[in-house]
Amino acid sequence: MTLSYSPVPSPTPGATPADAPLRSSYWPGLIEAYRQYLPVSDQTPVVTLQEGNTPLIPAPAIAEIIGRQVQVYVKYDGLNPTGSFKDRGMTMAISKAKEDGAKAVICASTGNTSASAAAYARRAGMRAFVLIPDGYVALGKLAQALLYGAEVLAIKGNFDKALEIVRDMAEHYPVTLVNSVNPYRLEGQKTGAFEVVDALGNAPDWLCIPVGNAGNISAYWMGFCQYHQAGKCDRLPQMMGFQAAGAAPLVHGQPVANPETLATAIRIGNPASWDKAIAAQESSGGSFNAVTDDEILDAYRLLASREGVFCEPASAASVAGLLKVKDQVPTGATVVCVLTGNGLKDPDTAIKHSNNPFKQGIEPEIEAVAKVMGF
Amino acid sequence: MTLSYSPVPSPTPGATPADAPLRSSYWPGLIEAYRQYLPVSDQTPVVTLQEGNTPLIPAPAIAEIIGRQVQVYVKYDGLNPTGSFKDRGMTMAISKAKEDGAKAVICASTGNTSASAAAYARRAGMRAFVLIPDGYVALGKLAQALLYGAEVLAIKGNFDKALEIVRDMAEHYPVTLVNSVNPYRLEGQKTGAFEVVDALGNAPDWLCIPVGNAGNISAYWMGFCQYHQAGKCDRLPQMMGFQAAGAAPLVHGQPVANPETLATAIRIGNPASWDKAIAAQESSGGSFNAVTDDEILDAYRLLASREGVFCEPASAASVAGLLKVKDQVPTGATVVCVLTGNGLKDPDTAIKHSNNPFKQGIEPEIEAVAKVMGF
Repeated sequence: MTLSYSPVPSPTPGATPADAPLRSSYWPGLIEAYRQYLPVSDQTPVVTLQEGNTPLIPAPAIAEIIGRQVQVYVKYDGLNPTGSFKDRGMTMAISKAKEDGAKAVICASTGNTSASAAAYARRAGMRAFVLIPDGYVALGKLAQALLYGAEVLAIKGNFDKALEIVRDMAEHYPVTLVNSVNPYRLEGQKTGAFEVVDALGNAPDWLCIPVGNAGNISAYWMGFCQYHQAGKCDRLPQMMGFQAAGAAPLVHGQPVANPETLATAIRIGNPASWDKAIAAQESSGGSFNAVTDDEILDAYRLLASREGVFCEPASAASVAGLLKVKDQVPTGATVVCVLTGNGLKDPDTAIKHSNNPFKQGIEPEIEAVAKVMGF
Repeated sequence: MTLSYSPVPSPTPGATPADAPLRSSYWPGLIEAYRQYLPVSDQTPVVTLQEGNTPLIPAPAIAEIIGRQVQVYVKYDGLNPTGSFKDRGMTMAISKAKEDGAKAVICASTGNTSASAAAYARRAGMRAFVLIPDGYVALGKLAQALLYGAEVLAIKGNFDKALEIVRDMAEHYPVTLVNSVNPYRLEGQKTGAFEVVDALGNAPDWLCIPVGNAGNISAYWMGFCQYHQAGKCDRLPQMMGFQAAGAAPLVHGQPVANPETLATAIRIGNPASWDKAIAAQESSGGSFNAVTDDEILDAYRLLASREGVFCEPASAASVAGLLKVKDQVPTGATVVCVLTGNGLKDPDTAIKHSNNPFKQGIEPEIEAVAKVMGF
């Protein structure tokens, strides 16, 4: 018994939702699902963990705050196999590396990229090297990559030095670089836009997205444009990028020397995809805005405690941003907020910033418990 | 713009895999997808986070260890919205509670159940109470539930006392009990079996599953039987239940007073669904077996470092068990191992039990790095 699939037709743009088929039975991963839109051939060995196909969840509590018949959805990419959107790019990067005969991959990362690179590389039978600055990272952040089988090397130097070395290594040794400069990463990430259109039957009016290295906003825009050209949607969304106030180079129009925010996944002062992100914002009539750490935390708690969705702090920047500029949302608009990572990646923030009660020392009697509960 | 769907037909049992449709465009959550098999009506308000629809991932490295053309898949239920299979039961339990007009739910749990209950209850606009024994739990285990908005009450007493009180509370106050005694939980959980059949086009030969409270093995069996009766599969799997050696009442045929295992999610000495689990094992010609913590950890590392799948230690019991009894697997059989929870739920175990290298103090020069890498 083996698994395979045959594609079902997507709904026509603007068709009634009832025309959209139910996803059932088997999702083969995004390369097989979107093969015709990706730079792969029959010779490409597909390395997949069945990434993609993540839920687009209605967010009625957020919509209610905005009012005016605005509809809000969150694209919960934290439900990818390693817990973040990075898997979309990594299935492409690792499959292409394997096609090229690579036996090892390398990246400089302390977070989601290292976990994703390790999982896919090991599944492909390759070694996975992760370079980090000495003494820089809590081991907890690397637990996932280590368990996936990454070989983590800490160098005497900062993160920029680590990045310089991995680039050098990839040039002079038989290892493939899977940092964000790898061109296949954005190709995979653009499938997030495809899925949003496939689910809604058209592009949303607004796409709200956290912006750190600016690769994901660029990839989403590429995806929307490509799908539009293919006739899968009859409009394009305004691309609304949100950065943390302490790490907002695209808002200020210049690099930030010492970026600071608790949203570590977007703590980047000089985004690699700067030009592409600006192009996406300008072409789409969107904008960049900054949100404070407090606004991020408020959105983070709101998402969990009202919508039941637990994301990384950085992910909540998209919702924090939407709420910040809510008066600009057109009446009746459809808005999608991208949640890039799973909240389980960062339990410390959850413990530290939960406002919810934890009451101890209660007598083990039903009356005592009922009283505490307010009955 | 709203979301909806129309079902696509499932493949005929034994049909060629190419007949299986690609999941695309929109998964509405398991109640909508499997409505005809569930005790819901048009009056039931569906509370969903689009749970279910989790990947069935081929596990070629495990299959290779077994040999003899055996095919192995893992059902990665850690990719449910709150990170465990509990969401399958909770969407049902909370939807039915809401239908009955409940304003609050309660459970005694220190793990996956409390997180899932909190997420769904809060999404439904209900209060969520979690009772735990005083001083018993590390706060980290409850971080998720607290962020979802649970109100956690620690009583002076042990876990059994907490369970007794929540049952009493549900009887005498307007709160709904969502512990495993809630009958709707197993109804939701049985959809895991539906999805396995939908993906494979038939039931597997073996279904390997971790057994703690024994609800999930009972639910899967119920699902396979119901699908079989509906003509969705033309055979039934042998149900292979695996318990931790220090918490193996079903293997020994009697309760265990002080269950011990690092696989906390299956550390249960007197399973609530004892009789149902025995019935599933006997009717299916399956068996119960015990695996040691070392075997669980080996499987946990193997899954991560060879297959790229990061699960909870308890989940790995299914794979540990399969490998332990591998000589009993029929040649050419199709085997599905259920992975019940996401590895991100338990970062401490990942840190403590990763065997992978972490090398520090490397000179920031390409030659030094290359040497450490073995070039």
